[in-house]
Amino acid sequence: MLNPVLSQLKSNIQSRRTYLCVGLDPDPAKLPSGFSQTIEGVEVYLKEIIRLSSERCIAYKPNISFFEGLGIDGLAMLQRLRNYVPAGTPWIIDGKRGDIGNTSAMQARFLFDHLGADASTLHPYMGNDSLAPFFEYRDKLHFVLALTSNPGSATFEKRVMADGRPLWATVVSQCTAWNVEYGNIGLVVGGTNAELSQIRTQSPRLPFLVPGVGAQGGIYEDVVKDGVSSDGILLVNASRQILYGDGNWEERVDRELDRFLIR
Amino acid sequence: MLNPVLSQLKSNIQSRRTYLCVGLDPDPAKLPSGFSQTIEGVEVYLKEIIRLSSERCIAYKPNISFFEGLGIDGLAMLQRLRNYVPAGTPWIIDGKRGDIGNTSAMQARFLFDHLGADASTLHPYMGNDSLAPFFEYRDKLHFVLALTSNPGSATFEKRVMADGRPLWATVVSQCTAWNVEYGNIGLVVGGTNAELSQIRTQSPRLPFLVPGVGAQGGIYEDVVKDGVSSDGILLVNASRQILYGDGNWEERVDRELDRFLIR
Repeated sequence: MLNPVLSQLKSNIQSRRTYLCVGLDPDPAKLPSGFSQTIEGVEVYLKEIIRLSSERCIAYKPNISFFEGLGIDGLAMLQRLRNYVPAGTPWIIDGKRGDIGNTSAMQARFLFDHLGADASTLHPYMGNDSLAPFFEYRDKLHFVLALTSNPGSATFEKRVMADGRPLWATVVSQCTAWNVEYGNIGLVVGGTNAELSQIRTQSPRLPFLVPGVGAQGGIYEDVVKDGVSSDGILLVNASRQILYGDGNWEERVDRELDRFLIR
Repeated sequence: MLNPVLSQLKSNIQSRRTYLCVGLDPDPAKLPSGFSQTIEGVEVYLKEIIRLSSERCIAYKPNISFFEGLGIDGLAMLQRLRNYVPAGTPWIIDGKRGDIGNTSAMQARFLFDHLGADASTLHPYMGNDSLAPFFEYRDKLHFVLALTSNPGSATFEKRVMADGRPLWATVVSQCTAWNVEYGNIGLVVGGTNAELSQIRTQSPRLPFLVPGVGAQGGIYEDVVKDGVSSDGILLVNASRQILYGDGNWEERVDRELDRFLIR
């Protein structure tokens, strides 16, 4: 049976004709004029973003670090924000977690039980027992970092292993194998990487969460062509492109959401 | 000039004759009788632990995940706890963070500016721009995961690279190189690993934070022998061994602290 979050994403892609995942990375200094540059201002603005976009994207991805950056009151706001999201649009909390087993279990409890996440993102470095407590949340979805969109992906992720393949390919293989047991694993693959189609060939079925489109330089149409799974699933994240810019914010957000429609 | 946190650790090791870093991993269900199994009970107990240990350990390492597991009120308690720690005993917030550059900057802000950390722990996977925003907190100390104490260290960390060395050795080399510029980088090396002395040979000067002693099976005396830096610096973390057990808790904590004295 298909994981319920995956089912919802698949249905959203079909009915809403987009692969857009709206990244919620709040920065009070960048809010449109008319919104106070405070936690309250951020909350009001993100509520508006959710109102405008909830039927025009397939999921939301708040990056918890931007809420943490606002302090504990910022995290309390992230917790409240969950209530404004209509059922049917999954809430992916991008926390990039991972620790030894009993500690990962605490991390998972925070994201899923306290903050209401439908999906998480995970660092692979510490291996199987650091990831399993997340995977054991069977009805949730878990995106493991494979090849990220930042320049630092060259430091370790692209290093070549003894088998002649880069480290990211080892992570992709391992996650693909784990998914046979769990059925709730996805991969984070940066949209700025030429390797996207290669990774898709290596792992045809896993859902990919692709950041790096827009401000970071990835092209949506290329990512869609190279990244969609054999089940038709793909999440293309855009954060700054949707949230921030010049001019009337409501018109601008409306126009940017439109760019992600599949024609 | 030596980093101020490193100077403090060195001075503490000399005056307190121990390498013990007390890990604060609160679990309400494990509190001694007499403490309520609530966030308030945890706070009272950890205050007592700090009172008993602040001159008998060199640092504290609260693992943020155990506070997150208690929800946002648990994080608020972590923030308050900072105030109970006397100056001179560094506060290492074990958060295992790391994201793309502008996001890591938010993570660093949370740990250092909001929660009062003197040091952090970091996932290396995403590479240089994910770590640099932490390193730029020059007066803080940053421990990068090299070889961890959990079984999952075999999944990726111990995989062999094209140069014939394991992945962790690549991380050790890279961190040692970065430290020439920053002077505020350490390594997390699990005390359950036979490789500890090998890693010390590869990187003689970096401070090591060594978890895995006690409940996880590492032996303190062996870790001290193999792990101390050429500058005499080492942090050996013990959490469950100090915090939880049978009998009168005050006597037990006193006795466990004693075990870490260098005779």
